[in-house]
Amino acid sequence: MKKSSANAFELEWVVDLARRAGELALRYYRHTTSERKADRTIVTAADRAVEAFLADEIHRRYPADGILGEESSNSQRNAECQWILDPIDGTSMFAAGLPIWCVSIGYMVGDQMQAGVVYLPVVDDCFTADLSGPAMCNGEVIAVAPEPEVLDEESSIISSSDVHLIWDTDFVGKIRSLGACAAHGCYVARGSVLAALNTHTALWDVAGVLPILQRAGGEITLFDGSPLPVRRMLDGSKAPQPILMASAANARIVRQFFKRKP
Amino acid sequence: MKKSSANAFELEWVVDLARRAGELALRYYRHTTSERKADRTIVTAADRAVEAFLADEIHRRYPADGILGEESSNSQRNAECQWILDPIDGTSMFAAGLPIWCVSIGYMVGDQMQAGVVYLPVVDDCFTADLSGPAMCNGEVIAVAPEPEVLDEESSIISSSDVHLIWDTDFVGKIRSLGACAAHGCYVARGSVLAALNTHTALWDVAGVLPILQRAGGEITLFDGSPLPVRRMLDGSKAPQPILMASAANARIVRQFFKRKP
Repeated sequence: MKKSSANAFELEWVVDLARRAGELALRYYRHTTSERKADRTIVTAADRAVEAFLADEIHRRYPADGILGEESSNSQRNAECQWILDPIDGTSMFAAGLPIWCVSIGYMVGDQMQAGVVYLPVVDDCFTADLSGPAMCNGEVIAVAPEPEVLDEESSIISSSDVHLIWDTDFVGKIRSLGACAAHGCYVARGSVLAALNTHTALWDVAGVLPILQRAGGEITLFDGSPLPVRRMLDGSKAPQPILMASAANARIVRQFFKRKP
Repeated sequence: MKKSSANAFELEWVVDLARRAGELALRYYRHTTSERKADRTIVTAADRAVEAFLADEIHRRYPADGILGEESSNSQRNAECQWILDPIDGTSMFAAGLPIWCVSIGYMVGDQMQAGVVYLPVVDDCFTADLSGPAMCNGEVIAVAPEPEVLDEESSIISSSDVHLIWDTDFVGKIRSLGACAAHGCYVARGSVLAALNTHTALWDVAGVLPILQRAGGEITLFDGSPLPVRRMLDGSKAPQPILMASAANARIVRQFFKRKP
């Protein structure tokens, strides 16, 4: 029988894998050109090389597991254990030579995202979570921001870069867009911002960060508060609404400031 | 007679100064708490310590020059040569433990911004320009982005974090907000994005980046295209409009997508 990783997620091995993938990506960083995919989004040679590296390493160690990557198809879609990879989350940033992008690795058993590692190579921030311990950033325990006493101009959230096209909002505070969905979610998990909004979300955008955010006291839901249909998104389809990454309390607060544009 | 730096800006010395200031700031990064200033913006002990370090070093070397810092007053406001300091541009990012913030040093003779250094310690990007050579990032010559053949969803600009409060826009591409005005301008200078918008701009927000952007083929103007009243802003007053950082051609393109909210 082929080895499966069920209940045997090895956090140290995955962290090392993410760091090696980050080193590989850094060799291309600021020395690469991009091209357009069929959906008109950007891809670089680095995305393909890093995904091939990750998939090869995981397949060698866990040949029975499924692997879903942004740049390739899943040959074992019915396996109980699934690895969901975004080799470079924030490809547009990477291709522009901007520093916020990350390697994201999520691990699912059945319909549960159980563990994740998100690594930002330029910044050297490594976020982790598995079933056995808390969410961590660079070895320190992290938690989402408490409910704010007041909202004012220093209150801060993050969004994907299309906020101006999607939302009417009178949110009184700062709305930043740093450039990579998984990194955004990790900064919510660390309490640096109250919440993050994202549109056109694929499973690989959130698979790594989802367990980190949950273990830090947060959650990822559709914008209306309903659950993210994780298992259904294994086929590569997008979430049916924008998503919200935050504690339940902060999601309630932030949600009321955003209305979809007509 | 006290030594003045007129026409004797020493780029290597200023780069070293910015790097040492960055190292000092990193000692506080993720280990500091913030407080509110009278204008309700955030300041940390790091802002004060880094500005004192910069001002002391500059004053020792050039005792006749004026020094304008975000956190202190200028004792030699009428000196011909002025150093304009933002010890930590992007204090809110710094205080939140987020990686995009920078040390910014601008150098003015008469009413001309002549030289500048902007250093991002976490990312280790160092942008420079003086009168004798081109704009550089980490020792490589940089230039603004050419006029785009088409604008589409991958076209990209940067803004301060209040874009949703200030502008009505149907810009078709990405609007990011990375968190620090001087860094935004430097990424325009390197051609990573087409343009950057900023509101509530003080001289220290742009003094370091202005020479870099000019030498890279760009400019900083008020939103309507009129000149930034640099010398008048030496008293600490804000620019009378939002500002636009871009090449003249790209400024013309971007400007038409933004209307002030009523």
